[in-house]
Amino acid sequence: MVEIITGGITAPKGYSATGLRVGIKEGQSTKKDMAMVYSERPCKAAGTFTTNVVKAAPVKFDRQVIDSNEEVCAIVVNSGVANACTGSEGMSYCEEMAKTTANVLNISEKGVLVASTGVIGKQLPMDKINEGIKLMAPKLGTSFEDATLAAEAIMTTDTHSKQIAVKTTIDGKEVTIGGMCKGSGMIHINMCTMLGFITTDVAISKKMLQKALSDDIVDTFNMVSVDGDTSTNDTVLLLANGLAGNKEITEENEDYIEFTKALNTVTTFLSRQIAGDGEGCTALFEVKVLNAATKEKAVTLSKSIVTSSLTKAAIYGHDANWGRILCAMGYSGAEFDPEVVDIYFESAAGKIKIVENGVATDYSEEEATKILSESEVTAIADIKEGSQCATAWGCDLTYDYVKINADYRS
Amino acid sequence: MVEIITGGITAPKGYSATGLRVGIKEGQSTKKDMAMVYSERPCKAAGTFTTNVVKAAPVKFDRQVIDSNEEVCAIVVNSGVANACTGSEGMSYCEEMAKTTANVLNISEKGVLVASTGVIGKQLPMDKINEGIKLMAPKLGTSFEDATLAAEAIMTTDTHSKQIAVKTTIDGKEVTIGGMCKGSGMIHINMCTMLGFITTDVAISKKMLQKALSDDIVDTFNMVSVDGDTSTNDTVLLLANGLAGNKEITEENEDYIEFTKALNTVTTFLSRQIAGDGEGCTALFEVKVLNAATKEKAVTLSKSIVTSSLTKAAIYGHDANWGRILCAMGYSGAEFDPEVVDIYFESAAGKIKIVENGVATDYSEEEATKILSESEVTAIADIKEGSQCATAWGCDLTYDYVKINADYRS
Repeated sequence: MVEIITGGITAPKGYSATGLRVGIKEGQSTKKDMAMVYSERPCKAAGTFTTNVVKAAPVKFDRQVIDSNEEVCAIVVNSGVANACTGSEGMSYCEEMAKTTANVLNISEKGVLVASTGVIGKQLPMDKINEGIKLMAPKLGTSFEDATLAAEAIMTTDTHSKQIAVKTTIDGKEVTIGGMCKGSGMIHINMCTMLGFITTDVAISKKMLQKALSDDIVDTFNMVSVDGDTSTNDTVLLLANGLAGNKEITEENEDYIEFTKALNTVTTFLSRQIAGDGEGCTALFEVKVLNAATKEKAVTLSKSIVTSSLTKAAIYGHDANWGRILCAMGYSGAEFDPEVVDIYFESAAGKIKIVENGVATDYSEEEATKILSESEVTAIADIKEGSQCATAWGCDLTYDYVKINADYRS
Repeated sequence: MVEIITGGITAPKGYSATGLRVGIKEGQSTKKDMAMVYSERPCKAAGTFTTNVVKAAPVKFDRQVIDSNEEVCAIVVNSGVANACTGSEGMSYCEEMAKTTANVLNISEKGVLVASTGVIGKQLPMDKINEGIKLMAPKLGTSFEDATLAAEAIMTTDTHSKQIAVKTTIDGKEVTIGGMCKGSGMIHINMCTMLGFITTDVAISKKMLQKALSDDIVDTFNMVSVDGDTSTNDTVLLLANGLAGNKEITEENEDYIEFTKALNTVTTFLSRQIAGDGEGCTALFEVKVLNAATKEKAVTLSKSIVTSSLTKAAIYGHDANWGRILCAMGYSGAEFDPEVVDIYFESAAGKIKIVENGVATDYSEEEATKILSESEVTAIADIKEGSQCATAWGCDLTYDYVKINADYRS
């Protein structure tokens, strides 16, 4: 039984965290911009990274750490500058961040992961970064407040911090998972342009930990899209320190399945939080494609709808413009028969069928508008050719999205 | 020598046109919504249509006419209602439009093409359509003013009509090409969601006419993107009535090449007009990718940049956020080496290199902002791996785009 509890990344045994402001975000004088996560016992580490050909320095750095099989004790993160498109100088700064962190925490520098988010193309202000690392080490704490400091420090244009913790029982032992992430602009599938950090005290092999994460993101983080752009810095890191005391999970047994359920609760929550907090957005837009012949087709269709600028603008306008949904399905590249498609809108205010077999039903515009005026709106397309389904998450497209992105750097 | 002359679709010999308001666009009381184009001599006809799986009734109807080898004498167009997702009822209305037109013009109903643009999912108000066709026939005229009436009547959210005429000499005869189009929202590549109508008096075989159009749109209409959505109604029709009196073009000879040059002048002009008049846009955004190994790669990269919401918003903000350009290239799916890429911005105010070998140059932000503040801005990415190039056109993303699309139907 997976249960949601109050907490964040410090909820599992052995983890501490903190966050503070060192001044990397210029001209935004109150915003924190550095976070640190530490595990008192070395962790198995898993990671998934952006598929963008242009990879930020921290993505390349972390990939090496994950591939090296080293156990990890700490993650250090900055917001404000992405350390992307920064050449060999940028890579050397990742190494310096890890080294400084290792020194102040008295751990191996091979066991430090780094992450950055913010403006592309600027070099990190390493004097501030090094100072921040030194200031954070003595402030590390295990409370929810400490986790919140970290969750707030990784935000860029996010309007609120995003964190969750869950517990379950594995092999008779209480196992806890905590997570935090930042999203907002530049969020797209494969992977969402986002940073996600998940901690757990479960005992699990590195191989099974990576499998759990890699399998999970297909239906969670990879199904989030805010603006269709996939960033240079997308990163999800998952640490497991084994302090729960369960028998180490080394195969796809009952314990593994229970762990993946708990993990999925965390990643689904965080994915929906990211989608619902897209830049300037006023509504979480969920899209379900039902009864496709293949999973791949359901994914393609649902992503095409959720990323359509026209559909997103219609959701913002509470306009039941189902033609745009059918249109977005049509240019997705997936084959289907438009003349059998049913489309529904659903929210807390009710459910309405607006298209039957490709043609508008005699639905009430008033009722449709009422359903579309909720803060979470679902569009459902039933293509009636098989049994595969997919769910994608995004948000509406608003004036404020444009405003935020027209002068992000200034 | 291709020369641009004053005129539109009535510029070539034998063509007349008109446009008027019959009230299909409700609540927009001054806007024209029907247009007619007529050739006194039957024409060879070529067409290219949307690749969207969901095809509007007029697209299906015209495809049949083009494939039938029938000669065409007239095109009738309405704006306000797209006749898309309208089932068999919608198809029957295309037939009725053609029949009414054939009756009033005393031509074969097999020689009538139809086109619609506007809201998806509504049935056409056939009483108004039939009335409009009857009113238009006696008003057909050959002046530029008559062409302008037609060009205005096909507009939806376009802010101005788009037309051009050119003349050249083929086989010692003066040959004229005229064109008009509508674009604005929902404009994307393959093909741009748009209606384009091109008339010419050249004598050419149907096969060569279709080849000329199909080859041309690859570098013109298909390289336009306003919002990444590809519509159900995209249509480009090209009529040739042979009244110029040249020897009929039946192969890829000198005459054919001269014709394609003249055609390309028309289609490039119209494509840039569509991009520069995207919904709510303030700037034409041109993207050139230079020195790719393959043409396909150059096309993929340039389209990915020109459709990136984040890049488009940065252009609106006159912000030299080149990181977003490199990022958009990175997620395009095309392989390239980000560490050799040079990026430039260019406009009437000058040209500036902002990235060299993947890293920012020491450019002046002030100068970059000046260049980006022009009404036509070009981004150039040199990927230094081959000799293939591509140019794509789009526009910036603005508050007004969102406003227009949030409540298009109301």
